[in-house]
Amino acid sequence: MISRQDCLALDAKDPLAACRERFALPPGVIYLDGNSLGAMPRAVPSRMQQAIEQEWAVGLIRSWNDADWYPAPQRVGARISALIGAKPNEVIVADSTSVNLFKLLVAALRLRPGRKTILGENGNFPTDAYVASGVAELCGVQHRPVAPAEVMAALNEDVAVLTLTHVNYKSGQTFDMAAITRRAHEVGALVIWDLAHTAGAMPCDLNGCEADFAVGCGYKYLNGGPGAPSFAFVAERHHEALRQPITGWHGHAKPFAFGQSYEPAPGIDRMLVGTAPQMGLFALEAALTAFDGVDLQQLRAKSLALTSLFIRLVDQELSEYGFGLATPREDGLRGSQVSLTHEQGYAIVQALIARGVIGDFRAPDILRFGFAALYLSHADVWDAIALLKDVMSSGDWQKPEFMAKKAVT
Amino acid sequence: MISRQDCLALDAKDPLAACRERFALPPGVIYLDGNSLGAMPRAVPSRMQQAIEQEWAVGLIRSWNDADWYPAPQRVGARISALIGAKPNEVIVADSTSVNLFKLLVAALRLRPGRKTILGENGNFPTDAYVASGVAELCGVQHRPVAPAEVMAALNEDVAVLTLTHVNYKSGQTFDMAAITRRAHEVGALVIWDLAHTAGAMPCDLNGCEADFAVGCGYKYLNGGPGAPSFAFVAERHHEALRQPITGWHGHAKPFAFGQSYEPAPGIDRMLVGTAPQMGLFALEAALTAFDGVDLQQLRAKSLALTSLFIRLVDQELSEYGFGLATPREDGLRGSQVSLTHEQGYAIVQALIARGVIGDFRAPDILRFGFAALYLSHADVWDAIALLKDVMSSGDWQKPEFMAKKAVT
Repeated sequence: MISRQDCLALDAKDPLAACRERFALPPGVIYLDGNSLGAMPRAVPSRMQQAIEQEWAVGLIRSWNDADWYPAPQRVGARISALIGAKPNEVIVADSTSVNLFKLLVAALRLRPGRKTILGENGNFPTDAYVASGVAELCGVQHRPVAPAEVMAALNEDVAVLTLTHVNYKSGQTFDMAAITRRAHEVGALVIWDLAHTAGAMPCDLNGCEADFAVGCGYKYLNGGPGAPSFAFVAERHHEALRQPITGWHGHAKPFAFGQSYEPAPGIDRMLVGTAPQMGLFALEAALTAFDGVDLQQLRAKSLALTSLFIRLVDQELSEYGFGLATPREDGLRGSQVSLTHEQGYAIVQALIARGVIGDFRAPDILRFGFAALYLSHADVWDAIALLKDVMSSGDWQKPEFMAKKAVT
Repeated sequence: MISRQDCLALDAKDPLAACRERFALPPGVIYLDGNSLGAMPRAVPSRMQQAIEQEWAVGLIRSWNDADWYPAPQRVGARISALIGAKPNEVIVADSTSVNLFKLLVAALRLRPGRKTILGENGNFPTDAYVASGVAELCGVQHRPVAPAEVMAALNEDVAVLTLTHVNYKSGQTFDMAAITRRAHEVGALVIWDLAHTAGAMPCDLNGCEADFAVGCGYKYLNGGPGAPSFAFVAERHHEALRQPITGWHGHAKPFAFGQSYEPAPGIDRMLVGTAPQMGLFALEAALTAFDGVDLQQLRAKSLALTSLFIRLVDQELSEYGFGLATPREDGLRGSQVSLTHEQGYAIVQALIARGVIGDFRAPDILRFGFAALYLSHADVWDAIALLKDVMSSGDWQKPEFMAKKAVT
């Protein structure tokens, strides 16, 4: 039997415990939704105030040079590169994840002319499937989503590009990035990895896996704030040949020469399109300081400890309430989240939120709990389970206010 | 002869004079670059602080519902619609101008299958030409830029879509939106208007002109801050048939049903792609309050008074220094900027900035001055001319520090 005391003992020897102070978290809340919107790093408000009241209000247009706004997409990209096993010149911040995926899918098809398939998996995050279908229609190829277990077998010489999310948004299960990338390359296919639930949650070795392309999200485990801009990774060996389709001026070799014909910028810069979303970049850059000095292996160890603890406490405390487990028990197959299943999942999540434990619901029956190891403790896990047990034993989730659907779930 | 006293007299009877207090402007600066980055509205910092320190830090993921983050793209779009002659449900805020132009160009081609030409003009802002070329390559059509005077004659039944910027970024000259749209429709072509230098600078009557599509910029005369998100207009009659190619989840009819196949949302919402850039939306929404109660005809009258005054003072004070005028003297053909030409334009602009008059330079020889009627006075115009005269008479612009090129001009 695991006790709350055991959890406190684990917290006492947690090498990352002090990182919690880098975040502003409201009292009375256990935040298990950092996989949807990361908590606010304390470094953000003062940076935003400086950027707005000094750089914008006083510096005005001069700040593009004087406050180094212009190189922010590359500079923030370089910071992120250290979290995902990339080189600083291989990552850039621009647009949204969906837009970056669109750019890379078209670019990948252009690198594999004649091949007619975008391969995917049928449990991928919807936007990845929607964007792939849209690109397939636009470019006259097929989008073929297969079951996760069939991805390896479906890789053949008709596949131009495979697009997968490394950690599944519903189950938290990981794909084997190294093995899949290797197999894809054996048949001459390229791979785009969506790192939405990877970057900042666990280490990832893009270059160790010889990855081609990746996209990822700024507002989940990177804590960049609502709608933070996305990042894109392009392996250096693809830079020269990459032709993405949204040919805006910030991806031009000489944007301020104002010439009339497009010439792609050298390197990763050609992934840029319009003027960079500086408000989002200010926040994201400040937010990333929360990772300063953090050992990613320690982060991974703590994340696995928290998710494993949560699973064991579900077994120990909640066995009578009909929850299923949608996340692998095996550490090597798990990202940084645990998903339970329950027919009444939506209402249970709402009742739990009302008690201060914030997770989220994913249709049709997933209760999703994300564990950001920088700001959560083992005692938080204990307390979350205790409150979930209280929701179930009280039957509170049956109240009408918890059954009513909201616009965003 | 116009005197500074005359300018002060004009300011004394300016019905918009009080609007200047809605902006934070640094002392010692005359800001004539609101056409590149608008000044900071005073409403922004407190809104950002609330959004960051309350809605994000405390509300966390709940703020998508509780703080009405989710409908922000539509809500801010509706605010902008009032400035451009559109209905509230015809405008939405998303992505960058270049990305919105890309979406609408592909969508327009799909509405005119079989037609093989994207018509443009060869003095358009480069990103519009680059994006059009990129779409042409992607979709197997031609991008044909012609001289501005030849646009009307070049409209024929092979043109699927014409893309024009309403106010030219270099010269400040306007196109006749009503006449060109009418002619385009006569040959069955669609038109995308880029309102980058129109929205917030002068009234515009999209629906009065029966416009099809428009895009525009949040960070120029709308004062939304660096890299503010862009807006897109789609006339209601096109909503049902519109198929834009970047099919992300926020453009889906039921984004939170997490189905695997894409179904476009009803109405303008299908222009959305990824999660909205909320940081940019917070600032832009607050910034737009600077237009509260402003009569757009008064705004236009003042803008024309300021630009006309500037031109007359160039004639009166600077005739010996070799400046050319790139902007029409005729009110009806002029947006809200005046562009001078000079072989040494780059260095002259730098020397002028050092004196506190901020304009910008556009290659090869344009000195560009934007006049945001909400925060500029007639006396500002006089003082700017006096300082430009001082730059020229002193020969200061020849100093090495003014000749050195910066990354962003």
